[in-house]
Amino acid sequence: MIRMGVIGYGYWGPNIVRNFHNQEKIRVVAVCDGNPAALNRVKKLYPDIRLTTDYQEITTAMDIDAVAIVTPVSTHFKLAMDALSNGKHVFVEKPMTATSAEAEELASLAQKKRLIIMVDHTFVFTGAVRKIRQLIDEDMLGPLYYYDSTRVNLGLFQHDVNVIWDLAPHDFSIMAYLIPEKPQAIVATGATHLNGHADVAYITAYFADNMIAHLNVNWLSPVKVRTTLLGGAKKMLVWNDLEADEKIKIYDKGVQIKNAESVYSLLVSYRSGDMWSPKVEQQEALSLECSYFVDCVEKNQTPFNGGETGHHIVKMLEAASSSLQNKGKVVYL
Amino acid sequence: MIRMGVIGYGYWGPNIVRNFHNQEKIRVVAVCDGNPAALNRVKKLYPDIRLTTDYQEITTAMDIDAVAIVTPVSTHFKLAMDALSNGKHVFVEKPMTATSAEAEELASLAQKKRLIIMVDHTFVFTGAVRKIRQLIDEDMLGPLYYYDSTRVNLGLFQHDVNVIWDLAPHDFSIMAYLIPEKPQAIVATGATHLNGHADVAYITAYFADNMIAHLNVNWLSPVKVRTTLLGGAKKMLVWNDLEADEKIKIYDKGVQIKNAESVYSLLVSYRSGDMWSPKVEQQEALSLECSYFVDCVEKNQTPFNGGETGHHIVKMLEAASSSLQNKGKVVYL
Amino acid sequence: MIRMGVIGYGYWGPNIVRNFHNQEKIRVVAVCDGNPAALNRVKKLYPDIRLTTDYQEITTAMDIDAVAIVTPVSTHFKLAMDALSNGKHVFVEKPMTATSAEAEELASLAQKKRLIIMVDHTFVFTGAVRKIRQLIDEDMLGPLYYYDSTRVNLGLFQHDVNVIWDLAPHDFSIMAYLIPEKPQAIVATGATHLNGHADVAYITAYFADNMIAHLNVNWLSPVKVRTTLLGGAKKMLVWNDLEADEKIKIYDKGVQIKNAESVYSLLVSYRSGDMWSPKVEQQEALSLECSYFVDCVEKNQTPFNGGETGHHIVKMLEAASSSLQNKGKVVYL
Amino acid sequence: MIRMGVIGYGYWGPNIVRNFHNQEKIRVVAVCDGNPAALNRVKKLYPDIRLTTDYQEITTAMDIDAVAIVTPVSTHFKLAMDALSNGKHVFVEKPMTATSAEAEELASLAQKKRLIIMVDHTFVFTGAVRKIRQLIDEDMLGPLYYYDSTRVNLGLFQHDVNVIWDLAPHDFSIMAYLIPEKPQAIVATGATHLNGHADVAYITAYFADNMIAHLNVNWLSPVKVRTTLLGGAKKMLVWNDLEADEKIKIYDKGVQIKNAESVYSLLVSYRSGDMWSPKVEQQEALSLECSYFVDCVEKNQTPFNGGETGHHIVKMLEAASSSLQNKGKVVYL
Repeated sequence: MIRMGVIGYGYWGPNIVRNFHNQEKIRVVAVCDGNPAALNRVKKLYPDIRLTTDYQEITTAMDIDAVAIVTPVSTHFKLAMDALSNGKHVFVEKPMTATSAEAEELASLAQKKRLIIMVDHTFVFTGAVRKIRQLIDEDMLGPLYYYDSTRVNLGLFQHDVNVIWDLAPHDFSIMAYLIPEKPQAIVATGATHLNGHADVAYITAYFADNMIAHLNVNWLSPVKVRTTLLGGAKKMLVWNDLEADEKIKIYDKGVQIKNAESVYSLLVSYRSGDMWSPKVEQQEALSLECSYFVDCVEKNQTPFNGGETGHHIVKMLEAASSSLQNKGKVVYL
Repeated sequence: MIRMGVIGYGYWGPNIVRNFHNQEKIRVVAVCDGNPAALNRVKKLYPDIRLTTDYQEITTAMDIDAVAIVTPVSTHFKLAMDALSNGKHVFVEKPMTATSAEAEELASLAQKKRLIIMVDHTFVFTGAVRKIRQLIDEDMLGPLYYYDSTRVNLGLFQHDVNVIWDLAPHDFSIMAYLIPEKPQAIVATGATHLNGHADVAYITAYFADNMIAHLNVNWLSPVKVRTTLLGGAKKMLVWNDLEADEKIKIYDKGVQIKNAESVYSLLVSYRSGDMWSPKVEQQEALSLECSYFVDCVEKNQTPFNGGETGHHIVKMLEAASSSLQNKGKVVYL
Repeated sequence: MIRMGVIGYGYWGPNIVRNFHNQEKIRVVAVCDGNPAALNRVKKLYPDIRLTTDYQEITTAMDIDAVAIVTPVSTHFKLAMDALSNGKHVFVEKPMTATSAEAEELASLAQKKRLIIMVDHTFVFTGAVRKIRQLIDEDMLGPLYYYDSTRVNLGLFQHDVNVIWDLAPHDFSIMAYLIPEKPQAIVATGATHLNGHADVAYITAYFADNMIAHLNVNWLSPVKVRTTLLGGAKKMLVWNDLEADEKIKIYDKGVQIKNAESVYSLLVSYRSGDMWSPKVEQQEALSLECSYFVDCVEKNQTPFNGGETGHHIVKMLEAASSSLQNKGKVVYL
Repeated sequence: MIRMGVIGYGYWGPNIVRNFHNQEKIRVVAVCDGNPAALNRVKKLYPDIRLTTDYQEITTAMDIDAVAIVTPVSTHFKLAMDALSNGKHVFVEKPMTATSAEAEELASLAQKKRLIIMVDHTFVFTGAVRKIRQLIDEDMLGPLYYYDSTRVNLGLFQHDVNVIWDLAPHDFSIMAYLIPEKPQAIVATGATHLNGHADVAYITAYFADNMIAHLNVNWLSPVKVRTTLLGGAKKMLVWNDLEADEKIKIYDKGVQIKNAESVYSLLVSYRSGDMWSPKVEQQEALSLECSYFVDCVEKNQTPFNGGETGHHIVKMLEAASSSLQNKGKVVYL
């Protein structure tokens, strides 16, 4: 039985508490939040959980094995350091930290103390992403040409981060999960209109072999879009996460170079065939992730969404923000 | 009566001949193409039109007042120079020329000789674009935050140009028509997978006042997308050109800064209201454009899609291609 | 404070308990279910609620003012009779009863005893239906020509009722709410393929003045459809309940008779204009309905979805089932 | 070489002339229309075709082997009789005739004189319908449960026929092509709002083995819908003819009866799997049909869309109209 403490019961905290609470091998023993109203909401749903407004009552408690940190990103480093230093495993919201130096330090400390640190990149536990991973593992798409994601809607403006830090962690974590290689360089552009943080951003990530990724993230769109295209040499895939039933479509379409008889003859031929939409598992992603956290703790196994991955994603966020600040100046990783 | 000669009867030529042919004040007197099969197709439909494989029989003919150039972009400059030099008005396919120097020279010669040169940016004559222009003129959207276009599908790979020169002229011409200001700088990224020309590209155009434009053009997409978002301070607009009936949707949605009591209070408030889809005229765009060409010739009036606009668009294409070659290095205009 | 007992905690019961529980003026004091596992689920979420497997401990309890009946339709009559006879107000799932005679008897008893009986036709409390009602009240559509609903998807086969009794109560209750007149006759067709109950049915309801309604209900559709068209003389409306944001679209389209010069001249002219999609309130329908139940009890006011409406809907279900059994033989109401 | 005469050059006539004209083994020698403007349009496009306003110059011409009749339905019988009597093969627009007695007489005369009569049910030559036929022939769907078509949009009101005679021939011809059995009975309902002809109609066709078909045809819909569902025991199919690329989707979904342990246990289990959208050929349907007409004439082979099928479809149209007039009274075939 893993005994957990949760710090932060705002927008996402209730989902974390509910999902850890539902794990058979976990008991949520304490929740911390600075806001008494939040604690009252916990009390109503879980009368047995201990409540506190002092996070150190979580990070230092003798009867707590693991700490979930569900607070603004600027606080992640301090809270996670405190938890790890006190020998607790850590489950921390995305992005892992506000700087890559912080992420590196946390990852290193966790490794040294043989503790689990897991970053909550929920999306990679969805049925859709796991299905795409399976298709890529089976080489259904062939070598990838591009990954092109659009993730836009109206708001939830953040006080402390720009739209890249808010939305791009999803795409970066999905890319890290789907694509074995890491990007070599980042170019980002964008604009700031309202509260001093960029609210529209376009990020290009260059990979080896002309593979390219592009993320369109925007807090000012009147319509919600969650669409990703993956172009491969063999097949192409469209993932529309807003579709209820047909989230993933695989197109037997493509192009290939043909020998040209002359400089004016057609160099490229097209192929167009059937489309196929595989069934996607509907299980709640966060529940799977919590169960995976249990596994990792029990087996003392480094999670694939652990400190190293979290650090890698923060590096890309830093690179993208930096490039955006410098009108698209390339940042090599 | 304007007597026209048409050079080039390949993919787009038949539309040009048909639409000029249908103008009351125009007579198409001759068509030139290097391919005899193409000329046979002309003969079958228009037995009275004179045929030739020698373009100079068009550009120098005494009974021709205006020349339509519907050939690959690399030939535009030479053919248009020849036509203008012989005192003919010119209607030339987009993009105007292969370099901005050429475009400038053509524009300058046309002005000097008081001849019309019009670039076939058909899209700005569609009902959808004219309706959006009208809405912007009425200040329905308020100051623009961004223009975000996705124009992707499988192919028609070109031999001589990359995807930017093929697809971005549409967006640049639409932007030139809708947005009074010109962009100040361009950043573009992209990749080349098949025949040596970039087939995926992402272009950012920076305007004054934090207005930003972004174009996603791609020859390797399994699905066809033609969607443009315009975010304004008052309202937001989505134009989906593939919709049969509801191409334009205007959303009474937005965000506004509110006075913040403290650094932690919410700085931005959201507004969400009705959506409205105005009726869009269905008239064939090219027919309107041909009619506008007649007007400009008759009144000796510089068209808004004339040499200067054509030149401006070629400059942006050059800038985008150059930036793409240099991994997103910003190009100031 | 209204003290409630709830009978039935299966598929829908948890929503009923949660929503009544959240009403300020209601306290759920007891829940009855024959299944101990269901009662355990209640206990986990609401430790203070009294549990029982004997429904009469609900219908006869001194400390209960109102009873919610969330059980299979065949049991509604007996349970509601028992509750009303013991002086309890009743909130009963749709459809009200298994026969119109039963519905009439319940409605009559409630009236005699001055007790509230409300049938849970949740759909009429949705933002979409209330918005359509408002538009009709404002005569935006003009006189109605037709109401055409498609409500199909794969299953949830019922043991005891056919697809008409399962799905058509939604449409009949919506029609009763939106259309002031009652239908004069019903024709229904359909077929039975699997478990002895019709699983595909098509219902036509004839109203005065050539107004016609049609319901397509089907348990065997591979895709879920929830679309209703309302054709009016002035405007036409499409309600797609599966749309996240644009559930209702109003089309400024129509036809009108013109004077014909001869028998061969065109008799009808078309009008096509803008489309408009009004914002729809997102509040949970069942919560509004529970609040309305409180109002009706407190003010001793007959609800619009009370016994009479419930009885009317059961009559239409009976008529439709009977017509279906007789290959579309018309049933006058 | 088959020499054809065409009677009628209104809305559909130009497509008929163009497609027969493009057949290698056919020469269109004459066109008849009462309207001189129509004949002028022919002359402009096909200067060699003989023109007349007297249909008998077509039906009796020595140099004409086959007559295409593209006129209002009320004239089909007389024109086709005249053509057949004069030894001409006949290609006639749908529906074949205005009454089933007329259709039977034509079919019988054609058979007696060993002439081809083909009814222009273009839809069965589309790539989509031919693909569905192929899937049914391969028993991909299993035994059919239902065929459910919605074919609605705003107008083209007809002077002489109701919405059933205008739109249902498409569905009846498709059903005749896809489903080996013939319906046993028809029930139809509907309403008349504008010009004295029913403009909204709902048709049920009963087949053996509880197979049921339903057609929703409507001239008063603000949106265009062309969707057909086919539910089979093994798989289910959705055909949306307005989709550009994915017209046909096959769902690996279904239900099956399970042995029930008790009367209360679940009787039906659900299956949900992948979806698959086969590529559909894009060839123009009318061109294929014209080519098939050539084949039938050359081989003196009875077409599957010949007199018998045309007669069958007219019988169903008659039955549906009659049932509609009698408030859904069943008509046995």
